[in-house]
Amino acid sequence: MALLMPFEKEEYLARMKKVKDSMSSRGIDVLLVTDPANMCYLAGYNAWSFYVHQVLVVTLDDEQPTFIGRYMDAFCGALKTTWLDASHVRWYSDDYVQNTEKHPFDFVAGVLKDMGAGKKTIAVEMDSYYFTATCYESLKNGLPEAKIVNGNLLVNWVRIIKSPKEIELMKRAAKIVEKAMQTAIESLEPGSRQCDVAANIYNSLIKGTDEFGGDYPSIVPLLPSGDTSGAPHLTWTDERYSTGTIVMIEIAGCHQRYHSPMARTVSIGKPDDKVKRVAEITVEGLNAALNTVKPGVTCEEVELAWRKVLKKYGFEKESRIGYSMGLNYPPDWGEHTASLRPGDKTVLQPNMTFHCIPGMYFDDFGVSISEAFRVTENGCETLANFPRQLFIK
Amino acid sequence: MALLMPFEKEEYLARMKKVKDSMSSRGIDVLLVTDPANMCYLAGYNAWSFYVHQVLVVTLDDEQPTFIGRYMDAFCGALKTTWLDASHVRWYSDDYVQNTEKHPFDFVAGVLKDMGAGKKTIAVEMDSYYFTATCYESLKNGLPEAKIVNGNLLVNWVRIIKSPKEIELMKRAAKIVEKAMQTAIESLEPGSRQCDVAANIYNSLIKGTDEFGGDYPSIVPLLPSGDTSGAPHLTWTDERYSTGTIVMIEIAGCHQRYHSPMARTVSIGKPDDKVKRVAEITVEGLNAALNTVKPGVTCEEVELAWRKVLKKYGFEKESRIGYSMGLNYPPDWGEHTASLRPGDKTVLQPNMTFHCIPGMYFDDFGVSISEAFRVTENGCETLANFPRQLFIK
Repeated sequence: MALLMPFEKEEYLARMKKVKDSMSSRGIDVLLVTDPANMCYLAGYNAWSFYVHQVLVVTLDDEQPTFIGRYMDAFCGALKTTWLDASHVRWYSDDYVQNTEKHPFDFVAGVLKDMGAGKKTIAVEMDSYYFTATCYESLKNGLPEAKIVNGNLLVNWVRIIKSPKEIELMKRAAKIVEKAMQTAIESLEPGSRQCDVAANIYNSLIKGTDEFGGDYPSIVPLLPSGDTSGAPHLTWTDERYSTGTIVMIEIAGCHQRYHSPMARTVSIGKPDDKVKRVAEITVEGLNAALNTVKPGVTCEEVELAWRKVLKKYGFEKESRIGYSMGLNYPPDWGEHTASLRPGDKTVLQPNMTFHCIPGMYFDDFGVSISEAFRVTENGCETLANFPRQLFIK
Repeated sequence: MALLMPFEKEEYLARMKKVKDSMSSRGIDVLLVTDPANMCYLAGYNAWSFYVHQVLVVTLDDEQPTFIGRYMDAFCGALKTTWLDASHVRWYSDDYVQNTEKHPFDFVAGVLKDMGAGKKTIAVEMDSYYFTATCYESLKNGLPEAKIVNGNLLVNWVRIIKSPKEIELMKRAAKIVEKAMQTAIESLEPGSRQCDVAANIYNSLIKGTDEFGGDYPSIVPLLPSGDTSGAPHLTWTDERYSTGTIVMIEIAGCHQRYHSPMARTVSIGKPDDKVKRVAEITVEGLNAALNTVKPGVTCEEVELAWRKVLKKYGFEKESRIGYSMGLNYPPDWGEHTASLRPGDKTVLQPNMTFHCIPGMYFDDFGVSISEAFRVTENGCETLANFPRQLFIK
């Protein structure tokens, strides 16, 4: 096997055990894993093949999960690059691909029957991007005697606490994002095309450092600017930057699918007092939130520390200020589990990792200054080390 | 409005008309569009916000569709960058985001009721990536009196024939991919890290040309190499290339979300006779397929021309050799409509655009040489102009 996995088999087995324990406690016999990050987490499978339907079948009584995918992805990719043996890699023929007459989950239902799971309790990831409504309908039709239940985020909640090796990969990603953010800030000049700045950022993110190569981040560089800088998920255009423009930069270093995100805001030329003031308040609030982080504290308590700073200055923010993240695939590097927001009672534990991004988005400008952090034994450490401020060019 | 759309409002209205005609003919009152490419196609909305649930509501009696999304994406992004007026942009509060207690499609159901659609025939994109099983369940629960039907690919089938302006954007993307493929081939040297080659490719793809900036392609550069070069959807690692390695390169130029994909194969050092032979057969078969393309011919006839060449040399290929493509978002630049494969009776028409990629994937190596093409009035033209061969470094 030309193994491409960054972890030893023992780490995958330990992850499988945690997932199976969670399945057992919830009365689940079979878990169908369709989130590519969860598939990678459990099997080591890492390819851009999630644009066709594929699934990892986890059963309580089998040490290995079973990969089911398209022939061209299974016979070489899954067989050669994961820790699964040949009996745990199955494939469907190519005429199942994007064909209205038949659906890959018809095939998956057949495999489950062959595995003796036709009458079992089968959990599916109901709200994962790659488990569509048709997957669900096709499975229900193919397995009329099975009990199909919601196993959404089951694996994601196992992923929330990182192993030392995972933390190491995220710290490598942090070295990469420091370098790329420096590149971004240097490239933002009046007259530069937005696409040229994005190209420089990409070059830096993917090259990585001399020691650690860059992987593709799960979200492309976000570069809203000017009068749409308050729209945080805009990307870039061919337009040229001009003096007086505010640019929010949100990027992530990625190494072997592990992320370290970072946002900073740049003013090309002297910023308005309003922008400076919002940036100062953002940094004060972000510091307050980070200072609150330690094991035993809840996610909503971290957000409250931020909120109090905002209130002191007469501001409010409608949206959450952060989320758990780590291993992922497009379209998101967030894990969809804990969020830093009111009502989230998740208790912080060592080696949880978050992106705290208290973006302030207004109708005519935005300011975003963020930190990715790890919960330590008695507090928190940021993954990267980069000046926490508004940059003025 | 800081319109970022590349088309005039008239083009959006013409698209809306075609979609409504298709809805009418199928008895659909309301269409919920969740595929980001379809949302962009109809509204001009272009942001990396599809990692949270969002939808465009098309009704027969309203000229404009209604955007429903997260507040931070709606109030500035959708309002300022699309042709929709303020009454056609709606938002849900941030506590709907990735929250197991409530789901954005609960909110969508409420909006549909407000719009008087609670008892209508509502079509949903059942197998689109961003319409999850939970979206479907939530909608059914929220609209018990509606008739919910499958409108999968309805908009995609309208997209299959491109306008002159769309073709122009794809030809710009082709200029970009020519440049990036040249960069890729030049960068592939013994001792280069895979990530450094990927970084060079990205830099070239995103910078674009002096006239046309690059947008992010919907699939990252695919660079399977060595003994896993038969696994077409692998990306890259930190490893260094060595002499004797075969590398398949599949990339796309992208301009304002329109793609022009291209695959080429490189041998670092002298290739085996087997590799050379497969490359020659691939080019002969690809030429035969392209020579068959003209209006009136079916997709399966194009594939048959390829298949005959293969058979002559005693080879077979299990998978389709191409698909319709154009405007798109991750994770795929394919449109999921017509495929070049046996059984696909789609009749070619002028300004359909395909990626013909007859990849030959073996256990120990792969060869991929492709062309993106447009169906012309009497034949076909490739979008890019790049030597159709195995490259030997």
